[in-house]
Amino acid sequence: MQFSSSLLENAVNEFAKLPGIGKKTALRLVLHLLKQDSKEVGHFSEVIARMRKEIRFCQRCFNVADGDICSICANSMRKQDVICVVESIRDVIAIESTQQFNGTYHVLGGVISPLDGIGPDQLNIESLIHRAEKEEINELIFALNPNIQGDTTIYYLQKKLAAVASTHGRSIRITTIARGIAFGGELEYADEMTLGRSLQNRLPVENYVSRS
Amino acid sequence: MQFSSSLLENAVNEFAKLPGIGKKTALRLVLHLLKQDSKEVGHFSEVIARMRKEIRFCQRCFNVADGDICSICANSMRKQDVICVVESIRDVIAIESTQQFNGTYHVLGGVISPLDGIGPDQLNIESLIHRAEKEEINELIFALNPNIQGDTTIYYLQKKLAAVASTHGRSIRITTIARGIAFGGELEYADEMTLGRSLQNRLPVENYVSRS
Repeated sequence: MQFSSSLLENAVNEFAKLPGIGKKTALRLVLHLLKQDSKEVGHFSEVIARMRKEIRFCQRCFNVADGDICSICANSMRKQDVICVVESIRDVIAIESTQQFNGTYHVLGGVISPLDGIGPDQLNIESLIHRAEKEEINELIFALNPNIQGDTTIYYLQKKLAAVASTHGRSIRITTIARGIAFGGELEYADEMTLGRSLQNRLPVENYVSRS
Repeated sequence: MQFSSSLLENAVNEFAKLPGIGKKTALRLVLHLLKQDSKEVGHFSEVIARMRKEIRFCQRCFNVADGDICSICANSMRKQDVICVVESIRDVIAIESTQQFNGTYHVLGGVISPLDGIGPDQLNIESLIHRAEKEEINELIFALNPNIQGDTTIYYLQKKLAAVASTHGRSIRITTIARGIAFGGELEYADEMTLGRSLQNRLPVENYVSRS
């Protein structure tokens, strides 16, 4: 692409660095901003810069936070003794959007994946074990993506947490979110693994009806 | 979507205002920026704000410019007596990328479209007529999108320019870019209008071979 303005070119190049945004899309975005009020574009750029500069990670659960502790950990209305273990901040947002969970989180920052060189030390696992030792935890819910890496991570953590529980003479309930046929999905298109597991983990109908 | 950080939420909302970017994509972009170095994100936001604040439109051709006159109009190596009339800045970039044009441009800022309430007065047409009167123009090339609005605009401009030429006793060559079967396109999938016109405007083979 040939630009007759270096200001335009630089802006397009910056946008094109973002994931999934090519040069053509970047140009479209920049030309859109060019049509907007200067004040609005100033606000856009300020909000982005401020977000990166001021955002922090919760010292307890590693979720994004405006201060030292995130608003979920700081909320005394939420069950502090129930922890949902997730891979990323994105998963926290997805679960919060369901409005079905009233506990707290622990963001691992990834899952164990030896092929990618990610072991337990690269993740926020040490801190989770620490929380299990210090806090009075009743239940730990694993909400990891259903794949080999997720299952490996659950297996690893479950062993570690069982050891903590027995050392401290505690009983921590460890659960994982249900795998099964998605709502609105069709049986015939489900993969064998999912369909097989959803048969194994079938529920009494009265439970199903009362929940939905 | 539920966010536990207002800094994050604001940034996502700003990105989601851009065309073609929904909340999920906006979140992906923001989380990407969150992983980048603070300095780099600062640079990103600065380049965007600076672009909007400092960019100007060429006083002669209405292309984007870093100063009063764009780099194309200011370039004495380019044929200043050949003007390519285009709809938008995007078209200037597209034509520049072909490296097949060595003249200057005139950006109309749209095309005549009565249904959308866009008449000649909303476009940079007055200034084009003015250029035709003051400058020694040899050729005007219309490179507008091939649709009703584009053709209407060509018809309107051609009349105006013919009047200017006869008043000032000048001969301006007025052309339009070729319509036809796109390179790599297939005859059987071309619409009748395109195929019909490309038959009417057929070229001697020697011309075709010497150009490609």
